[in-house]
Parts: sequence; structure tokens; C-alpha cells
Amino acid sequence: MKFEFKTIVSGTVTSPRGFLAGAVKAEIKSQNKLDLGIIYSEVPCVAAGVFTTNIIKAAPIIFSQKNLQSKKAQALVVNSGCANACTGDAGLSDAAEMASLTAKKLNILSKDVLVASTGVIGVHLPMQKIREGINRIDMSCEGGTDLARAMMTTDTFAKEIALSVETETGGFTIGGVAKGAGMIHPNMATMLCFIATDACIEAGFLQQALNKVVDSSFNMITVDGDTSTSDMVVVLANGLAGNKSMDEKNGKVFLEALYEVCLYLAKSIARDGEGATKLIEVIVEGAARQNEAMVAARTIAGSPLVKSAIHGNDPNWGRVVAALGRSGARVNEKKLDVYLNNVCVMERGTPANFDNEVLSASLAVSKDVLIKLSLNLGRGKAIAWGCDLSEEYVTINSAYTT
Amino acid sequence: MKFEFKTIVSGTVTSPRGFLAGAVKAEIKSQNKLDLGIIYSEVPCVAAGVFTTNIIKAAPIIFSQKNLQSKKAQALVVNSGCANACTGDAGLSDAAEMASLTAKKLNILSKDVLVASTGVIGVHLPMQKIREGINRIDMSCEGGTDLARAMMTTDTFAKEIALSVETETGGFTIGGVAKGAGMIHPNMATMLCFIATDACIEAGFLQQALNKVVDSSFNMITVDGDTSTSDMVVVLANGLAGNKSMDEKNGKVFLEALYEVCLYLAKSIARDGEGATKLIEVIVEGAARQNEAMVAARTIAGSPLVKSAIHGNDPNWGRVVAALGRSGARVNEKKLDVYLNNVCVMERGTPANFDNEVLSASLAVSKDVLIKLSLNLGRGKAIAWGCDLSEEYVTINSAYTT
Repeated sequence: MKFEFKTIVSGTVTSPRGFLAGAVKAEIKSQNKLDLGIIYSEVPCVAAGVFTTNIIKAAPIIFSQKNLQSKKAQALVVNSGCANACTGDAGLSDAAEMASLTAKKLNILSKDVLVASTGVIGVHLPMQKIREGINRIDMSCEGGTDLARAMMTTDTFAKEIALSVETETGGFTIGGVAKGAGMIHPNMATMLCFIATDACIEAGFLQQALNKVVDSSFNMITVDGDTSTSDMVVVLANGLAGNKSMDEKNGKVFLEALYEVCLYLAKSIARDGEGATKLIEVIVEGAARQNEAMVAARTIAGSPLVKSAIHGNDPNWGRVVAALGRSGARVNEKKLDVYLNNVCVMERGTPANFDNEVLSASLAVSKDVLIKLSLNLGRGKAIAWGCDLSEEYVTINSAYTT
Repeated sequence: MKFEFKTIVSGTVTSPRGFLAGAVKAEIKSQNKLDLGIIYSEVPCVAAGVFTTNIIKAAPIIFSQKNLQSKKAQALVVNSGCANACTGDAGLSDAAEMASLTAKKLNILSKDVLVASTGVIGVHLPMQKIREGINRIDMSCEGGTDLARAMMTTDTFAKEIALSVETETGGFTIGGVAKGAGMIHPNMATMLCFIATDACIEAGFLQQALNKVVDSSFNMITVDGDTSTSDMVVVLANGLAGNKSMDEKNGKVFLEALYEVCLYLAKSIARDGEGATKLIEVIVEGAARQNEAMVAARTIAGSPLVKSAIHGNDPNWGRVVAALGRSGARVNEKKLDVYLNNVCVMERGTPANFDNEVLSASLAVSKDVLIKLSLNLGRGKAIAWGCDLSEEYVTINSAYTT
């Protein structure tokens, strides 16, 4: 099947037909900023989700995982400023109340509402502010943009995208929003991401597609190696595009569109890591197996020494090789080639001839830095994304709660 | 058996009988500093070593591992400023030449010399400087102190200690030197440590004792999660104390003395992590198993978010719990207690009542910060050591080679 993607200008999670959103300043965050929002579909959706693998799970994760067992949902309520994590039974009941307030407002059932919270751990939600806030939210077709802002914590920009997809048998729209910034070493996904589509999709396939796409997008980014207690990717599909229902057999176009959306949002999160000034893309090819390529790429993208070197525009490729060596991937040093911004710095295990100053100057002007390793052992290939480590990361994170 | 340890004032690796050392400024480092040294025993030693688990091993590691197969050694030559890693066959032949130059100078065999290098990866050793330098080294009984300085890279202080050990059946002396600072997440040991003793010890037991001690000292420290290509712990025992040879049956006193030396040096390395202002001690107790306690303690001590919070004197215990949750250790949130500087901040999975400002003030004046977690699941217990993450870490590591 032929198909074509078009990026929608100012596209967001409410770009697909039948999705509304809205957000308010509920004063959960101390700054005077949007911090509470709702996404809603006018008709019930099939839904899929992927949740943090952290054994300590925040209350909204426990609540939403349970509600998603039905593979259905119609709305999602999210707040920033407080993660409602490590809050015991009171936290669980607060998450449930957020869902029931949202259900009542929208005249749907509480079991069709998902809940997400991000922010400080170990603090109870200010429920009176949440009650008043949910009440005040105005829902609209353009509300996705406000919603994207209401999710932000230390993010410096909102992350949103939508694609219009044309195929021979009709089209559909898919849009998403995400927040990231810190605690970004997903496993699943240390961030929040909400995706909406008007495509008609079989529920089992939707979950399969999401798992597959998350593995090569959100699970391949790292900011600081810390995996949060609170994070999730959720996709809602309301079927209003009226296409023939998609499943494993005819769903390739959906899989690719979902990947585009997730990849864009994942890279935006890496680029906007706390204190980051550069996006680092690490390509590992020629690994003995694909899982070895994945672990190697992630380890390099997450190495504090690699990240610091890139911050200083320092072509210190020894740190890349050292990180590879501890990653667990099989390596034959004598077969290893390493490239920084497409300049070969190590060839078959020994230092290559290159001009350090020229390469440093090239790194200095790159907002996107490319590290490529050819292991020359097999066909395993993977790409991971991270960001440089700046003094600013420490400054942000030494004064987060106090 | 009763025994007593005494810390020797200004004790170092040359405190035990029959050990000499010396160091020179060979201009391998760009600063005008000691950077090349030798440790030597007047008589042959039994020897044991533990080496980096990084799959990319520097030439001196490959060379020294091979030489140590005999379980004997008589001297060790070390340089800082260049790691001789990722340098191919030329690197191996440079390491061998360092050994043969040292052997010739001391009139011993090359196979009884170990070699260690630390510094930048991917650069060849300046062999002419090394040749001239080895020639100029003066060996003396007080040379350990210079040797400790010649090993330093970004270390801010030399790490050295010696103990005099008295037992009912005679005594012995044990002394050691170490360097650390960056790439410190040993697995084995991302640093260099050389230990000398005049005790008489059976070679197999010496290696056993070293393995055991390294696991609960050097392998429980972390500075940045990066494991180097170059690092080793070596112990030389020359038997000049004339005690009855020690082995598994009667060697408990040696095991404890070795542990004291390694623990002191390991904690010194953590305290002197690049940019560090505080030592962080993480005690995990009540884990289902000991290996789970170890992985949990190391994960928490290594979390950038925990380290940044401690740097900012921020009692942000949610980050401690989040790191625990991703560590792989089994956790029952409802049984979990967490303490910061002995103040309970989380009790049975929910926030405890404590004064945030008072605790922050206590963190501010602590050079040693204590994080303790009681998992209340079993008897597994472990202690890990790390340091806070400061803006200075990034500053140091963004301008290391260039």
C-alpha cells in the first residue's frame, strides 16, 4: 500500500477529528503557569498504554494501568507540579477522585478516564485546587496546545506534533504531546506522552504497535539514567476517520505514522534534557545482535563523560570506546571503527589521523552531534538519543524541591 | 587470634619493610608535575591483582594480567597523563618496553614487572620521555609519597595509608596508594591501587583475599557510572616480616587489614570524585538478598538526581526511592523506610513528618551524608559510597583533552 505523511502546521493532540482538550492554572506549581488539563474524545476510543518499569509506581500509574485493562478509554486528566508518588493509600484515592471529577464533568464513566501526574515525589496532591481546577477547564478543538504546556515541568519548550496520513483507501490523522526534561532514561518511558488518532484500529494491534514503536523511540532516549516512577505513553484511537479497521495485516501505515510521531517527540525530549544544549545521536551498527547494538547505543548516549565531552566540543573519543566496552555488547577492538560527526576518529582499533581542532570546531557549531560506531561483527543496528551534560543540569537539579 | 591495627603516621606503600619507590616529572602531563614512578621490593613477592571488567582493555592491563599469571612480581611502573588505551599493537609494545626498561634499571626480569597507565585514551605514550624518565627515578624507602602523587590525574589529594598489625605470633605492615577522580564506577575497580605488605602469604590466598575485599570496597564506590579501560588493584607481599605464612586457615588478620586499607582508599576516592564536595554513604539493609542490597546501594549512590539533590542540600528523598525502584532489587513499597542523616523521611511507604528546613541545614554542614534504606524483606545488607554531583564535574570533564 502506498501512503504519504504530511506534518500539520501547529499540529497537536487535538488535530485528529473528535478530540478536545483544555488546561488551567490550578496553582499546583508555584509559578503562575498552566498545570492541569484534560484530553477528551467525543466518542469512546480503543486505547493502549506503556508504563514505567520502575518497581515503585506512582498512584496514577497503578490507577491508569488498571483502567486500561479494558483496552478502552475516552478521556485523560493530567497535572504537573506533583507526581502523586510514594503517597500510599491516600495517593490512590486522590488519583481515583481526579478520574471521577473528570468523568462527571464530561458525563462519561470514571473507568474510561486515565490519570497522569508529574512533578515532585512524596507530596500529596492539593485536592481542593484540583477540584476547582477541573471544574474551570474549557474544552476545545484547539486545546491540545494548552494541554502540552500544562504537562511541562522543567521542559523549556512544549513538544507536540500531528501528521495527516493519506492512503489509497482513505486517510487519518494522528497527533501527540509529550513532556520530558529530567529522570529521562525510559524503560519504558520516563516521561508523559499522549497520542490521539481518529484512525479506526483493532485494540490488540494498537497495543502491539505501541510496544514496538516505543522500543525504538522513547526507550532509546536518555537524559540522566534515572527512570521515573510516574511515566507513561498512552494512545487513544476514536475511529472517526471512518477507514477500514486496521490490524496486523493492513496496519503498516499506522505503525509507521505512530513511529514518526513517537520518534519526533522522543528526540524533542532528548534535545530538551535538563540543561542540554545539544542533541546527541548514537548509531551503533555491525553489532553481533540487535539487542547488543541497543544496549551499546544507550550506554554511550548515557555516559556522563561522553556527555560532558560533547558539551565542551571535545573530540575525546576514548570515552565513547570506554563506554562501549562496559556496555555488555561484544566488541573486537581490532575491528572497531568510530566516527564523530562523520569524521573517522578510530579505525580498526587504533587512533585515526584527524585534525582535532577542526573536529572540535565542527562540534561547536553542531546542535545535533552524531556518534557512529561500526563494530563489524554482525548485522545488529540501533540508534539512541541523548543530550550533553552541562553545569546547568546540576544547577537545575540541586534546587528542585527546596 | 587477637590482633591490633595501628595507622602509621604518614604511612604509604613504602612503609612495609623492603619496599622502595620513586617518581619523576617526565613531562607526560602538560603541567610540571610528577607523572612517572616505580614501586620495587628488594626481594621477589607473591602478587595478586584485580583488573577492569571493561571489554576494551588498555595495553598495560593486558600486559600486567599476563605477567601476573605467575602470581609473582617484584616491581611496578606507573605513569599518569596517558592511558595507553586503544593504541593497538604499538601500545602493547610500549607497555612491554616500560617493563623492560624498569627491569633493566632494577636488575630484575621483565616478567616480574607490572605496568599501569592512566590518563587520556587513544594517544600513544611519549616513549622518549618515558625512557629518560625511568632512568632518572631515584628509589628510596620514603618514595611512596612521591609515587602516590605521580599517579594522580584530576585527583585533588594523594591517597595513601599504612597500618602496622600486631598479632600474638608477630606482626606485619601493609600500606597502599590509590588514584581515582573520574570514570569511577568500578567493576572491578575504575582506578589504580597498589598495595604492599611485608607479610608472608600463600599466593592463592592472597588472590582470594583481594577478590573478597575489592568486592566490598572498590566495587562499592561510584563517581559517575563510567568504568575505565585501564584500572587495577595490585598487592605485592614480600614476606620480610618473617611471620608464619598465612593462608585461608590462619589469614583472617590479613584479610581484615587488607580490608581496612582498601576501604580507606576507596572512600578517599569517592570523597575526591571530580568536583565532589561531599561523600555520600548509602546503606541498604533488609534486602531479600545481599546482591540485591549491593545493586540497590550502588544504583542510589550513582543516581545523578540523588547526587545533584545532595549537592544542593535538598532532602528530595523521592529521588532515592525512584533510584531504588529502578535498581532491580525487590521492594515492597509498604514496608520501606528511608532515612537521610538519620532522620526518617519515609516510613512504611508514605512521607514521614520531618522539618525540611532543619534537615536541609543538617545536610549543608555534612561533609559525609548518610542515606539509609530499610527494605524490611530479609537480611541482605550492603554499603556503597559516592559523591555529590556539582557543576564543577561538568567543567572538569568538558575540557579534559582539548
